[in-house]
Amino acid sequence: MPTTDYRTRFRIAPGTRVRLRDHDPGYKDRHRSKKEAAPEIERYARRLRELQYLLYAEGRRSLLIVLQALDAGGKDGTIRHVLGYMNPQGCRVHAFKVPTPEEAAHDFLWRVHQAAPRIGEAAIFNRSHYEDVLVTRVHGLVSKSECKARYAHINAFERLLADRATVILKFFLHISAEEQLRRFRKRLDDPKRWWKLSEADFEERRYWDAYQEAYEDALSRCSTEHAPWFVIPADHKWFRNLAVSRIVVETLEALDMSFPPPKVDIEALRARWRELAGKERES
Amino acid sequence: MPTTDYRTRFRIAPGTRVRLRDHDPGYKDRHRSKKEAAPEIERYARRLRELQYLLYAEGRRSLLIVLQALDAGGKDGTIRHVLGYMNPQGCRVHAFKVPTPEEAAHDFLWRVHQAAPRIGEAAIFNRSHYEDVLVTRVHGLVSKSECKARYAHINAFERLLADRATVILKFFLHISAEEQLRRFRKRLDDPKRWWKLSEADFEERRYWDAYQEAYEDALSRCSTEHAPWFVIPADHKWFRNLAVSRIVVETLEALDMSFPPPKVDIEALRARWRELAGKERES
Repeated sequence: MPTTDYRTRFRIAPGTRVRLRDHDPGYKDRHRSKKEAAPEIERYARRLRELQYLLYAEGRRSLLIVLQALDAGGKDGTIRHVLGYMNPQGCRVHAFKVPTPEEAAHDFLWRVHQAAPRIGEAAIFNRSHYEDVLVTRVHGLVSKSECKARYAHINAFERLLADRATVILKFFLHISAEEQLRRFRKRLDDPKRWWKLSEADFEERRYWDAYQEAYEDALSRCSTEHAPWFVIPADHKWFRNLAVSRIVVETLEALDMSFPPPKVDIEALRARWRELAGKERES
Repeated sequence: MPTTDYRTRFRIAPGTRVRLRDHDPGYKDRHRSKKEAAPEIERYARRLRELQYLLYAEGRRSLLIVLQALDAGGKDGTIRHVLGYMNPQGCRVHAFKVPTPEEAAHDFLWRVHQAAPRIGEAAIFNRSHYEDVLVTRVHGLVSKSECKARYAHINAFERLLADRATVILKFFLHISAEEQLRRFRKRLDDPKRWWKLSEADFEERRYWDAYQEAYEDALSRCSTEHAPWFVIPADHKWFRNLAVSRIVVETLEALDMSFPPPKVDIEALRARWRELAGKERES
């Protein structure tokens, strides 16, 4: 019987070798349809908002969510639907694009470090430092041995953040080649999306196998106890949304957070309130 | 007959003198209750999300929303309920607190300038540079004449942003003294909020009149065509939410934005798609 705990079920156990073809992108657990799963999706979304508020109130930890996927894998959609439920106060999204000249003039973790969440806050990375062992590797900009050195840098960097009470969750949104093609088609059919289209998206598809391999290596090498990778079945958008929010909820719940004690004497403040209210009545 | 256009109705016309007591904090237009207004609130929230996406897609303008209020005036609530509908990608909230030593070692607009929204994005200021002509003035940290100089600096600074296609909307959430007292009471009665309580909040109430006066001056001096102030009736939280989102929607709609034209030849890309799909079938 599979565990009902998503953060165990979809996690890459540290030290294991990932084979993406063993992960079904169309998986949807016991749910038959989006409609049927809707109450559960809604429940986790609401709970996520409560827990994020608690994280903020507690002010003792940070949350870092890393989203990686192939083109049309659903990073934007995940942010919009799931993480959009979070309060924009205390939650920042960072989209990492082609490095600026300033960024490129530093080590590959320099710009990422600056975007690390501050205490009490959540940061969502739309793409991340992992691009530096993915797109760069696929296009031969870094060698395999350079990649290995980078995995070590990444693990040390994530350890640094974790040691400063950062909860790190990394999601690979796993879609099938057929689903990607279907989504490209949808973009072509919707004039509202034409402005976003580029030839490059379509051409990257030629490197599908190379990307799968690069992801397998990165996920295998960099899934750690303090910063685990999760492979999320993402052919069904609604299941992807459910799985990501559920894993975040399960993780935050396990922290057993609580509101900090008051900084003031509540009884004294109550007395002060009555005084103010009394003045009000007189005037 | 009053106009149905909220961005005219609640705006401080440039050059006019504001008297806050002429603005009813309990105003709720034709609505009788939150429940009755719910469909309208929902409609504006949805429209807000669509328009923010269009702002992002268009990539030609920025949106800056400034929120100011007395304690318990509802800044956090407005962000949570109204602006929480916006996509966290392309929308950043900046809470301006007591300046850090680094910030205090610069002019008062230095830290604010850094938080200006980039093109295509929205920024929400939870408090702002206006604190430097409000709290500082009430507590005698700046003189009246210094304040006057600052109004001029503020107007010039906002002009600079507006000239770089920044749409600026400034909201003063206007509550009555009785409503503030009621909200303080609620905080005292809710253990989940105790961690946030400070004596200072209650003591600031002594300066109620001084704050009203400081706000009247700032609103009168700094409501301009390119960066208007709005006085939002905020005793009813649901009406406050409705009014703010409606003004943002009305303003963005007036821009008559549209999706940019595609960067690629859609027909050529369609042909490429068929080619890819054909390969798929063969393999």
